[in-house]
Amino acid sequence: MNHRMIRYIISMFLRAEAAFMVLPIFVCLYYKDFDEILPFVCSIAMTLAAALLLGIKKPENDAVFARESFISVALGWILIALFGALPFYISGSIPNIIDCIFETVSGFTTTGATILDTVEHLPKGILFWRAFTHWIGGMGVLVFLLMLTQISEGNAMYIMRAEVPGPSVGKIAPRMRSNSLILYGIYTALTLLEAIILTAEGLTVFDAVTTAMSTAGTGGFSVRDLGIAAYGSPAVDWTVAIFMILFGINFNLYYLLIFGRLRQMLASEELKIYLAIIAAATVTISINVAGFYSSFGEAVRKAFFQVASIITTTGFSNVEFMAWPQFSRAVILMLLFTGACAGSTAGGIKISRIAIMAKAVYRSIHQLAHPHEVSCIKFEGKVVDRETRSFVCTYMTVFFLILFISTFFAMLQGHDFETSFSAMLSCFNNVGPALGLVGHSGNYNIFNGSIKLFMSLIMLIGRLEIFPVLILFMPSTWEKHS
Amino acid sequence: MNHRMIRYIISMFLRAEAAFMVLPIFVCLYYKDFDEILPFVCSIAMTLAAALLLGIKKPENDAVFARESFISVALGWILIALFGALPFYISGSIPNIIDCIFETVSGFTTTGATILDTVEHLPKGILFWRAFTHWIGGMGVLVFLLMLTQISEGNAMYIMRAEVPGPSVGKIAPRMRSNSLILYGIYTALTLLEAIILTAEGLTVFDAVTTAMSTAGTGGFSVRDLGIAAYGSPAVDWTVAIFMILFGINFNLYYLLIFGRLRQMLASEELKIYLAIIAAATVTISINVAGFYSSFGEAVRKAFFQVASIITTTGFSNVEFMAWPQFSRAVILMLLFTGACAGSTAGGIKISRIAIMAKAVYRSIHQLAHPHEVSCIKFEGKVVDRETRSFVCTYMTVFFLILFISTFFAMLQGHDFETSFSAMLSCFNNVGPALGLVGHSGNYNIFNGSIKLFMSLIMLIGRLEIFPVLILFMPSTWEKHS
Repeated sequence: MNHRMIRYIISMFLRAEAAFMVLPIFVCLYYKDFDEILPFVCSIAMTLAAALLLGIKKPENDAVFARESFISVALGWILIALFGALPFYISGSIPNIIDCIFETVSGFTTTGATILDTVEHLPKGILFWRAFTHWIGGMGVLVFLLMLTQISEGNAMYIMRAEVPGPSVGKIAPRMRSNSLILYGIYTALTLLEAIILTAEGLTVFDAVTTAMSTAGTGGFSVRDLGIAAYGSPAVDWTVAIFMILFGINFNLYYLLIFGRLRQMLASEELKIYLAIIAAATVTISINVAGFYSSFGEAVRKAFFQVASIITTTGFSNVEFMAWPQFSRAVILMLLFTGACAGSTAGGIKISRIAIMAKAVYRSIHQLAHPHEVSCIKFEGKVVDRETRSFVCTYMTVFFLILFISTFFAMLQGHDFETSFSAMLSCFNNVGPALGLVGHSGNYNIFNGSIKLFMSLIMLIGRLEIFPVLILFMPSTWEKHS
Repeated sequence: MNHRMIRYIISMFLRAEAAFMVLPIFVCLYYKDFDEILPFVCSIAMTLAAALLLGIKKPENDAVFARESFISVALGWILIALFGALPFYISGSIPNIIDCIFETVSGFTTTGATILDTVEHLPKGILFWRAFTHWIGGMGVLVFLLMLTQISEGNAMYIMRAEVPGPSVGKIAPRMRSNSLILYGIYTALTLLEAIILTAEGLTVFDAVTTAMSTAGTGGFSVRDLGIAAYGSPAVDWTVAIFMILFGINFNLYYLLIFGRLRQMLASEELKIYLAIIAAATVTISINVAGFYSSFGEAVRKAFFQVASIITTTGFSNVEFMAWPQFSRAVILMLLFTGACAGSTAGGIKISRIAIMAKAVYRSIHQLAHPHEVSCIKFEGKVVDRETRSFVCTYMTVFFLILFISTFFAMLQGHDFETSFSAMLSCFNNVGPALGLVGHSGNYNIFNGSIKLFMSLIMLIGRLEIFPVLILFMPSTWEKHS
């Protein structure tokens, strides 16, 4: 195993994070919160020191294979979550260190689950950092690093596979570096567009930018205690809802759009299923909750916002959906599972994975009755090979195993089934809000420290799509001879 | 497709059922309930008429393959459930026809979920039939038929695979017919032994026999409203608990025991895991509920009984476990998943399947980090081939899919998450009791007719281990050309 290269990649993670932490300092300067600068400077210093200790010189042997990539990505994410918690702790914004870690993991993994009862009293710099972690975590730190650094193509592909969501990594451009540049370009452009529209709709620049970053990463942290509801503007509701849906679409499709291949974009099977689920869920919930609102239009808006918020795993709060009828809550619970499209910033199981699973299962049953037929399934017009099919089924099995073990972990400490299950599912799929006692605001302060740490791990496992983190816990990973 | 042979096998099912219905008539005669004989006579007549219509002459071409076997077994089970409901309906013991079907399906699938608030007023013949459905369903109707009929070896193997629980069918004897004889021999002997011990402990012969049949099938129906608690005897508690555990053991192991191969029996990996889970669950629950009972001994007895009842998917009620602390309820919920050993009369996922899954998952993760290693996993000392591994993962994926779709089905009709989920899980794994509003007595009368019918389907899907029933719903199964 190439230990030096693992250390080097983790060090890259930390150096990138230190660079990211410079931005909140400008926010502090702009708002003349000079007292708030020191915590960020300290955090940057500590993060850089750790990076230096790990080594900043690229080793001569820079070959990384599957194992090194998984380990580097998993450890890298764990470390940026720990160091990213420093500003919250040093500034005293969040007094408890476990809470700081939970909040930061929730930020980077774009979960948006919070332990804060109120946020409006926090300094602007801290609120900016909180939203910014969403934006960084959404597209991924390594995708960012690949824009800047020189890593050979083969190695980059291995690393990308460990960080980019979805059952397979689509390559837009022939070179990984251009790939990363294009992805971050689209990401930044869409974020800016949302921020500009929100400002035009009357939000302050600070609220518009943080909300846009939070939407872009499909995170869900808000700078307002009431979330998006605080703005009390239907136009803002629609804007945020539509952008959430846009950020839930596979970014490769935007690339097609830029090059005028609209027809090819619209042919995407995953996109069609995604939009169909959103439409179906919005219509059924609207009808079900119509009586709760003064007009049907308002019901549709609330339903659409909530559906968009949950399916894209953003988790912005806008309505008290725990007060909705059981039917609508059941639909919300279903959406907690799906997640949006692969290759987007959204978390969750992903629609492509669910579609492949459904087809694979159908095929398996057919095969039982017709054992001598040659089987083959297609997705997005391409044949899905045996390997991918069986891997998707393994993924789902592990997903449910972890989900139930986590639920039991919370239940054994006295939490009820609905709260335990939905909170763990919400953390695992990086959504934020849950049913039961957690509710629409996604406040996780009801859990004790050990559950919060466990949930932090679950969020990371979910964001990195299970395997990179699990590999850390396998004894065989650390065996010397291999 | 060999339609005539499918019809012939289903007709065999019905003829066997008509024969089984003769037994309750003797019970009526013995207890001088002469009014209760007519419903059974009518039911037998109708069942035989249906069998005659389907054809009782074995077709010349008696070849059946996978598809025919699955279809025959699934349809056969559906039909015996429908015809088995006739005595309840005709006698007026259960006035609603949907309730009759639910109760009968619950009987044959050895679930033991009931819609009856009280049973003690019912005639002895009906109570006997109710317990007897458990006994028939436990070992399987086809296993019984194979004792009596002449079906070629290859065909018998196909059919066995569709009915006998577990990831693979173990053959004890070289011939299927002797196989079935041995299985039913052990089954009958153990049932008689339990009935004799219970009679010695003070139960009436009727109570002892029905309780023994219910234990043997790991069903859970009782002839008392309070279940086993009605006897108020610690000795009865221990006896029933130990027999539940015995019926949860793979019957092939008893075969080994009979031939003195004790060491080989004790080497069974599945048996060891099974006993370890029982021990661990009993100890933790005993400690957790110690304060609820007058002595620690009583706590152990209650805990042991409940653990045995749930893991073997019997579901006899003895204590109000919904009043236990959340920790113990969480352990109960975990046991609702596992089920006992493959090749026993117990339902559930089965320990061997869970063990193979855990090993397969571990191996898959290892493989990700070491893509060039040759992978292989072992269970019970034998290599598990790729096919079985991938099939177990598919099984689990489908299991969770069906579980969640069913939960949503109940939730959409207004039931809370805990009740919906645990009731569906309990039906699916053929346990009986559930958490939430269903509770320890497993009374399903809170659900409406559509949910009860849906649950009946889920119980059948669970008993036949998913695929035979699902194949009925695949359009490709019914295509002519294949």
